[in-house]
Amino acid sequence: MSGNTFGKILKLTTFGESHGFATGGVIEGFPAGLVVSRDDVQIELNKRRPGQSKYVSQRNETDELEILSGVFEGKSLGTPIGFLVRNNDSRPEDYDHLKNVYRPSHADYTYDKKYGLRDHRGGGRSSARETLARVVGGAFANIILREQGTEVIAYVEQIGNEKINVDYKSLELSLIETSPLRCPDKDAERRMMELIERTSKEGDSLGGKVFCVIRNCMPGLGEPVFDRLEAELAKAMLSINAVKGFEIGSGFSAAEMKGSGHNDIFEEVGGRIITKTNFSGGVQGGISNGMDIYFTLAFKPVATIFRDQESVDIDGNTRVLKAKGRHDVTVLPRAVPIVEAMASLVIADMILRNRSAKA
Amino acid sequence: MSGNTFGKILKLTTFGESHGFATGGVIEGFPAGLVVSRDDVQIELNKRRPGQSKYVSQRNETDELEILSGVFEGKSLGTPIGFLVRNNDSRPEDYDHLKNVYRPSHADYTYDKKYGLRDHRGGGRSSARETLARVVGGAFANIILREQGTEVIAYVEQIGNEKINVDYKSLELSLIETSPLRCPDKDAERRMMELIERTSKEGDSLGGKVFCVIRNCMPGLGEPVFDRLEAELAKAMLSINAVKGFEIGSGFSAAEMKGSGHNDIFEEVGGRIITKTNFSGGVQGGISNGMDIYFTLAFKPVATIFRDQESVDIDGNTRVLKAKGRHDVTVLPRAVPIVEAMASLVIADMILRNRSAKA
Amino acid sequence: MSGNTFGKILKLTTFGESHGFATGGVIEGFPAGLVVSRDDVQIELNKRRPGQSKYVSQRNETDELEILSGVFEGKSLGTPIGFLVRNNDSRPEDYDHLKNVYRPSHADYTYDKKYGLRDHRGGGRSSARETLARVVGGAFANIILREQGTEVIAYVEQIGNEKINVDYKSLELSLIETSPLRCPDKDAERRMMELIERTSKEGDSLGGKVFCVIRNCMPGLGEPVFDRLEAELAKAMLSINAVKGFEIGSGFSAAEMKGSGHNDIFEEVGGRIITKTNFSGGVQGGISNGMDIYFTLAFKPVATIFRDQESVDIDGNTRVLKAKGRHDVTVLPRAVPIVEAMASLVIADMILRNRSAKA
Amino acid sequence: MSGNTFGKILKLTTFGESHGFATGGVIEGFPAGLVVSRDDVQIELNKRRPGQSKYVSQRNETDELEILSGVFEGKSLGTPIGFLVRNNDSRPEDYDHLKNVYRPSHADYTYDKKYGLRDHRGGGRSSARETLARVVGGAFANIILREQGTEVIAYVEQIGNEKINVDYKSLELSLIETSPLRCPDKDAERRMMELIERTSKEGDSLGGKVFCVIRNCMPGLGEPVFDRLEAELAKAMLSINAVKGFEIGSGFSAAEMKGSGHNDIFEEVGGRIITKTNFSGGVQGGISNGMDIYFTLAFKPVATIFRDQESVDIDGNTRVLKAKGRHDVTVLPRAVPIVEAMASLVIADMILRNRSAKA
Repeated sequence: MSGNTFGKILKLTTFGESHGFATGGVIEGFPAGLVVSRDDVQIELNKRRPGQSKYVSQRNETDELEILSGVFEGKSLGTPIGFLVRNNDSRPEDYDHLKNVYRPSHADYTYDKKYGLRDHRGGGRSSARETLARVVGGAFANIILREQGTEVIAYVEQIGNEKINVDYKSLELSLIETSPLRCPDKDAERRMMELIERTSKEGDSLGGKVFCVIRNCMPGLGEPVFDRLEAELAKAMLSINAVKGFEIGSGFSAAEMKGSGHNDIFEEVGGRIITKTNFSGGVQGGISNGMDIYFTLAFKPVATIFRDQESVDIDGNTRVLKAKGRHDVTVLPRAVPIVEAMASLVIADMILRNRSAKA
Repeated sequence: MSGNTFGKILKLTTFGESHGFATGGVIEGFPAGLVVSRDDVQIELNKRRPGQSKYVSQRNETDELEILSGVFEGKSLGTPIGFLVRNNDSRPEDYDHLKNVYRPSHADYTYDKKYGLRDHRGGGRSSARETLARVVGGAFANIILREQGTEVIAYVEQIGNEKINVDYKSLELSLIETSPLRCPDKDAERRMMELIERTSKEGDSLGGKVFCVIRNCMPGLGEPVFDRLEAELAKAMLSINAVKGFEIGSGFSAAEMKGSGHNDIFEEVGGRIITKTNFSGGVQGGISNGMDIYFTLAFKPVATIFRDQESVDIDGNTRVLKAKGRHDVTVLPRAVPIVEAMASLVIADMILRNRSAKA
Repeated sequence: MSGNTFGKILKLTTFGESHGFATGGVIEGFPAGLVVSRDDVQIELNKRRPGQSKYVSQRNETDELEILSGVFEGKSLGTPIGFLVRNNDSRPEDYDHLKNVYRPSHADYTYDKKYGLRDHRGGGRSSARETLARVVGGAFANIILREQGTEVIAYVEQIGNEKINVDYKSLELSLIETSPLRCPDKDAERRMMELIERTSKEGDSLGGKVFCVIRNCMPGLGEPVFDRLEAELAKAMLSINAVKGFEIGSGFSAAEMKGSGHNDIFEEVGGRIITKTNFSGGVQGGISNGMDIYFTLAFKPVATIFRDQESVDIDGNTRVLKAKGRHDVTVLPRAVPIVEAMASLVIADMILRNRSAKA
Repeated sequence: MSGNTFGKILKLTTFGESHGFATGGVIEGFPAGLVVSRDDVQIELNKRRPGQSKYVSQRNETDELEILSGVFEGKSLGTPIGFLVRNNDSRPEDYDHLKNVYRPSHADYTYDKKYGLRDHRGGGRSSARETLARVVGGAFANIILREQGTEVIAYVEQIGNEKINVDYKSLELSLIETSPLRCPDKDAERRMMELIERTSKEGDSLGGKVFCVIRNCMPGLGEPVFDRLEAELAKAMLSINAVKGFEIGSGFSAAEMKGSGHNDIFEEVGGRIITKTNFSGGVQGGISNGMDIYFTLAFKPVATIFRDQESVDIDGNTRVLKAKGRHDVTVLPRAVPIVEAMASLVIADMILRNRSAKA
């Protein structure tokens, strides 16, 4: 039983191999009567596109979005929204030499074991190109979030060992949009850029961390006991290529804290109940409490490197591989809109799911 | 739309409030013809029971499992397995003083916001008592895993700042079963015990980490793109009370690694393709590759502490709270069987889901 | 992948073999804050119980309902409602002679083929006893319907060749409750009774028809294109043991009608849009239009008869069977509350599903 | 919660409004390694196309299928199959006069009530054009069925009051393919043609019946208790536009039969257990028994007629409507491939679902 659909009421189903005809999807459960602008969705899509700066790969993918259904005269119909992006810039012949080889830390071997065959061109279904359908889904989800005044903001917190050293509350988050690395801290960004250039020359690659905050989220979202808000967020995030870790609120640092220091004390301020601290990360008992929801993700370094690496082919023979073509040193900047998209999908779905919680 | 069911083919649905009549569930999709022993399930259940040692709380819950359906003459029928455990030792009156108060970092406030009312007795549905149904589900899942020779083993890796300092491969994992803290490292266990006693005297509580490894798991499990194996594991783990973080394989340390150091090189050994290192944590492209699957969880410290804490009641008035009764300083030892159960449910479900991957 | 759950937001999962320990289920997605009375549910349950009159079988099943969770101080919590009924009156030894035989037109053979084994006692999971969990689910669904003023009423329209000859609108439907056959037409009831007695003496059994009308259902329910309201009703009804046919509105008679005679002309009456006729049966384009929703079901005659019948055993040997014990000549009267329950579950689920149709 | 997905493991999600940019869908869960021919699917699609003969409407829809993903070098990848057909021949201006009017027995009124707005052009999402995505899905399902030697065959049994008077076993079913009415009985076909021409002149429309048989279906398919095989078939069939009734096996005639006449006696023939009669219609206890599965559907007459009809507009004003343009007198011939497609989807899904029934 396959796993190409995300969400329970607001559902995104995606399709597409990296070098097939198109990448696209269907959004189900999007409520009727909301104003939809194709151009707004295209803007989101452009953020994950390669070729935006010298720090990300230079493929010329135009990624022109076609919305095929579900929108009429600028409004959602309540019917499914089919969409696609043609795969224009495919160069499948770049991949012929990889047909029978298993690249280290890629999905080649596991796809072969699972399905008995695979589309070897550019990673096929396992390529990050699939994520553009997520970004489209996320842009629609965001329309629902905006109705609530809820905002999802992610940024690059760390690349390799270069990191932002302050809390998200001390940062000017609007700088993200103008940063080629999607990093709102100018000093950290400069250090990261230097590291990327240095690593690029070494033919090596980098991992890092993305931080995400959801602001002004209504209390009551999340569905105990299995579909807790943090559980759905964790699933959403770990479903992104290269993510190896997720922590929410106090996260791993909670392990060394004591209850007396970790408990978030409630207080009433202006008729609203808030917490003095927010180690919970905006979620208690699996349900949002109205405070900021924030979490961090760890990304592994890009598997494709410009160095000789040993591997095996489909027959078990040893082969030496070295990347050709165009590849990012790090995916972090391009991962930011995907993190935002997945977080938006989770929250929008939870808003709709919550509509049946009470009589 | 509620979230009380886990899994897609092997499905566990749970019910029960902490001080209601019973806690139980239904297991659907359990294949017919497998040998089922109620006593084996009861043994698993006993592991999460309080009152096993002085390090965990002394409630006398007998947790007698009743299997109501789905098993006939010692074998599974392929029909749903209904089960329950009576809530014998409930003392609801212990909780009367909490009826209208929101305990810090508990689910009281969020349940009220979501549902408009709640069962305040012992946390109601948000209580960790619900996890006994998970342990039952996990014990059944394990029957499927054993058919494949697959093993799920978890242990306490850290409590507060006391931790095991070596890799899981250096440990004698069979020691877990005899350790009151479910910690296979005797030295670390001793340090943890001292810390627990010290913290208990302070009326405070502790968090920690649980490590879990899945050994001898067949390659091919996991369903790209959204139901990747690590995504389902992350969801399963973050659905456990008090978990704040999840990392698989290299996890958060991946952020600072480079591709040349992180890539797991394939080699053929005795006709089988393996990787020389295992930073991937046994999962590539969302699919198991046959290597050990291992991950770590962070738990926050127990929210209930024996110290005065400020909070608010339902009307926004300030109240001072102090725990009464029986509460664990740390949930870590009792969380171990729950982590194992959830991991087993994920893997067993993935085994069944994988049956339709190929023609 | 098993099929023991009905509904998408309001979900009923059932378990239980006829002669196992208990029959029960879990209701998920029932909104919080609704008044729930165990006794009201028990009353519904009593309607499907055998032994109510000489026209239905004389088993002394008390069918005492236990609600285990999800209800607190008389109100729903929004958490899952676990419930069960113990199987008190089981006489498994009655069925020993059937252990390896396939009774004609029963589920013995097919369960064996599907699962490789079965609980032969009283049909095991295929027994109509399972339907008591449906009646409980339906009683909860009805609480949601009553909030809307929606009413689900079913009755026996035909047993064998004896039938009610008038339209449901000409009948006094309140007579159903006092009719031992759940037939609101006294003349038809008398003829049915005579037929039942005559057929009982012949050791034979009868089929028939049940009619159901849903009154005062809000427009807008039903989810195109696959989960059309009539599609979900059809599934619900064909999921009931012994049902062989379903027709809604004009039903099979539509085949011979022309568009000019079948089209339901809209008119506005008192600010409300209604249709002059209702051949559509209250559903257009898969969505309710506010008119009565009505449909008819055909039931096959009971498979268990008190006559010698040839069959085969598990090894293919010919065997002669003759029923022993207590069996109904017809299930029609007892099927009525089950039809109502399933219809109520469909409508209540659709009410909740419809909450996310619009922004 | 919308209803645009059919199936549990083999899942078809469709999208598209009649006069939007495209109609299409995604097929998930199609097993890897099966040979897929785009041309074979196109042939199925052509069967439902209008303009095939003078008995069906003359729209020039080319319905060119594009398969966008999931197939590589002629084989399925196990990844989702995205597909679409452009809506080339749309003449939306034909529908301007219908913008605010509710056509009788169409979905105009109910879509407006449900969603608050609608695409009025050609029925929008409620148009039968959506069914082409079902035919594509069915063609893929058929690839799975052919592996098992299972065959799904449907034909027109009745149009208006003209019908085939013999059993399906007496018919030469290969004649369906060459019949413009998809009716294998030449005499009945001639009578139906005359009736269609006569009715066309009257500006009226016709309903009818479609019969479907599934041959050589393996025993064991169907998932008790709610997803019984006949329940899923009923849902599939009632999800087709204009279907008002469904009966399987003995169907409505069962109501008047007695158990002694209706029971299907088992016998062993050549090592295989079969039944002497087949009133069960190949399904017992919700599970296939290996005999022919057969059922009949009733279709209402086409709602669009070339006669003046009263109706109301969105403001409740009376309006007189008369169809313009191109419309079928009866949909029956074009419905046949849709019935086959939906039946194939049910059986293929059940084959995959059954893979987890046993250990």
